[in-house]
Formats: sequence, structure tokens, C-alpha cells
Amino acid sequence: MFTTEFASLIAVIGGIGDLGSAIARRLAKVGEREVIGSQNPAKAVETAIRLTAATARSVGAAGNIQTELVILTEPLASQEAALRKIGEAIAAKNVVDTTVPLVPPKVKRVRLPPEGSAAVRAQKILVDGIHVVSAFQNTAAHNTAAHKLVTDGVVDRDVLALGKDKLARYSVVRLVGACGLRILNTGTLVKSTAAEPLTPSLNFINKQDTVDGSGIRITGIKC
Amino acid sequence: MFTTEFASLIAVIGGIGDLGSAIARRLAKVGEREVIGSQNPAKAVETAIRLTAATARSVGAAGNIQTELVILTEPLASQEAALRKIGEAIAAKNVVDTTVPLVPPKVKRVRLPPEGSAAVRAQKILVDGIHVVSAFQNTAAHNTAAHKLVTDGVVDRDVLALGKDKLARYSVVRLVGACGLRILNTGTLVKSTAAEPLTPSLNFINKQDTVDGSGIRITGIKC
Repeated sequence: MFTTEFASLIAVIGGIGDLGSAIARRLAKVGEREVIGSQNPAKAVETAIRLTAATARSVGAAGNIQTELVILTEPLASQEAALRKIGEAIAAKNVVDTTVPLVPPKVKRVRLPPEGSAAVRAQKILVDGIHVVSAFQNTAAHNTAAHKLVTDGVVDRDVLALGKDKLARYSVVRLVGACGLRILNTGTLVKSTAAEPLTPSLNFINKQDTVDGSGIRITGIKC
Repeated sequence: MFTTEFASLIAVIGGIGDLGSAIARRLAKVGEREVIGSQNPAKAVETAIRLTAATARSVGAAGNIQTELVILTEPLASQEAALRKIGEAIAAKNVVDTTVPLVPPKVKRVRLPPEGSAAVRAQKILVDGIHVVSAFQNTAAHNTAAHKLVTDGVVDRDVLALGKDKLARYSVVRLVGACGLRILNTGTLVKSTAAEPLTPSLNFINKQDTVDGSGIRITGIKC
């Protein structure tokens, strides 16, 4: 069984949403200690109770969180505000940013920020010493994908992990890999300019009749 | 058997290279009439003879080409010059641009042009009425992939087709699909800002021990 070798406590900010609660659920099931953070504290408590019941692990809820690892699963519109709070209130070493640069309902159009990508922007907002790892952008491009992530189903798509700091990147790769998802070390943060715009393309593909929630797999991997 | 319903003649510019000659070979095998164009006419003739022998179809070579469809497989450094020639000399309706914005030997670093992507730049260089379809950027990210493309091997990666003009996009999807590759209609040309930077990411992944020439597959497709 995987234990808490990576972080003493993981905060999932935006954890009341589909992606956040799915990630939190998978991490709880492999023994990680977590708290759910949200701008809606009542819903954070609700989600924490639901996850505790579903996983038989204690998942907490909190407004102010002291933790070493934050997983941010907010939509683009609230990414910046959430990051500023993280920068002020949390002594996190690593932040996993999952932001996809699109603005619903126009989910087929990419809105890359002037910095190049949402993840590069995240790194600029946060103080030096907090390492951003970009991941999960292409995982929940569609409800079907989110559903598989929420259940214990096999997720037939890869998570790409990008970040400047190698150690941060590897720790996220190990953490996510341990909870049943294939995650690939895809290089430095600047490559998030590739991973992020893929999701609007997947959303475009999803509009076609033959598609049932698209994702991506990297092929040519030996094992 | 697939016949020449799409274009009377296809020109593969840069067809002496790995990607160009592999595409030309596959198209010839399904009955397309083609000519190989190159800045090196002697090598274009050589390649044409080789492809004719390999496919039992007549593949020509030419400097000045009159054709309705051009497939451009030049490196980034010669993309612009080739497109300007196409704009001047060829009455093409559709141009398939395969340019990956990277500069060897730094194949892990993306060099997106100021226009946003190499394909968007291609569309700006060409006169109105010539439609650019971006494709094949992620197909030959590694020699292994190119090798499978050159032979009749199953290529375990998808081709993404992007372009402003729907008819042009669909004609390329049908043409490429007919020669044994899975190609997906991925939307408008602006989405090439996602497809193009993926290749440097794949090249990064290729540096890892467990990887044998990476590519991408879109998952969640019903058929």
C-alpha cells in the first residue's frame, strides 16, 4: 500500500468540483491525508464527508490550510485569486496547477494568457520557492472522462506533468502514478503551452458523433 | 481500391525527406498520382524512381508543378521560401502544411512564430483562396514513427487535421484516412497552436529510457 511518503497533507483547492473531488478520492484511497479547500466552505465540508464515506479514509475541509502540496482545480476565472491566497496563506512547496485556459460555454476556444499558458502564469504569481507542476489538463476534457476518474474505472488517457523543478515534477509523477493513473514526465513548464490548448481541441473532437469523451494517450512507451 | 477522386495530381514538396517520401509512398500505393518536389531536383528524381519501384505506381519529379493539392514537408527554416514559391507558381487549392516549429538540434524546444503557429503563418503567406490544412506534426516525432510510416506498418498514432476551410479539412481527412492512417478532424487552424508544440514535448518524452518513439492517440473514439 502506498503511504504518505510525499507530503504530510495534501490540500485540494477547488476540491468540490468534478476534477478536484475525483483526484482527492483517488489519493484518499491510496492513503494520502487530504483536506478539501473551496470558496464555498459548506460545500467543502459536504465533499469531505462524502469522500470520507466513499474511501473509508478521513478527508477534512478547511479555509486556511497549512500544507506542503496544493492541488489547484479551479476554473480559469478564479485561478489567479486562488493562487494569491495560496501564496499568502500556505507554506506549500509544490502546487499542482490543473487550469485549462478556456471560458465556458465556449469550451472549444483556447484563451492562453499573455504569459504563454495558465501554468506559466501560475508560476509568475507565486513567490520563488513554490514550484508549479502543470498536470491533469487533458484528463477531464469530457464528463465521461471525469466519470471514469470519479469511479475506480480505468482511465484510458494519460496525465502530462510539466514543471521547471525536476524534483517537484517527479514527486507529482510518483504521487499521481500511485493512484492508478498513467502520468508522464513531459518536461519544463513552458511545454504547458502544448498541453493546455489540447483540451479545446479535444472538446472540438467531442462534438463529433463518433466520440465518447476524448482524451490523449502517448504511444510508443515500452512499458 | 481508392482512386483519384480528391485531386488530379498531388505534389509533395520536400518529398525527398523521411516524412514527405513516407506520405508519398502511402498515397501512391492507394492510387494517387503524385510528383515529388524539392530544392534538390536530382534527389527528387531519385526519390520518385525509388517510390515508383516500391509502389508499382508512377511517381514523377518536377521543379515547377501545376497541381490542386500540395503537401509541404519542409523543415521550419525553409517553410516560408517554399510557401512563397507555391503561392507564385502553383494553382493549388489546398496546401497541407506539416511544419513543426522547432530548430534542430534543439528538438525539445518549441519555436512558435509570432503568428501563433507555423500553420497560421503559412495561411498568412499564401494568397486568399488557397486553404491551409495543418497535419502530420505529431506523426514522425521520432525515427521509429517515420520508419513505420515508410513501411506498411500500423502507425500507432493519430494525425490531427486542422484548417479554417471545412471542405479542405474534410478532403485531407478522407485522403489521409484512405491510405491507412487514422486522422481526426480537430478544428480550425488556430488549434494548430496545440498540435505543433506537442512535438517538442514528444521529443522530450523520447529521451526517457522507457520510450520507443512516442506519438499521440486520441482516446474515447467510438469507432
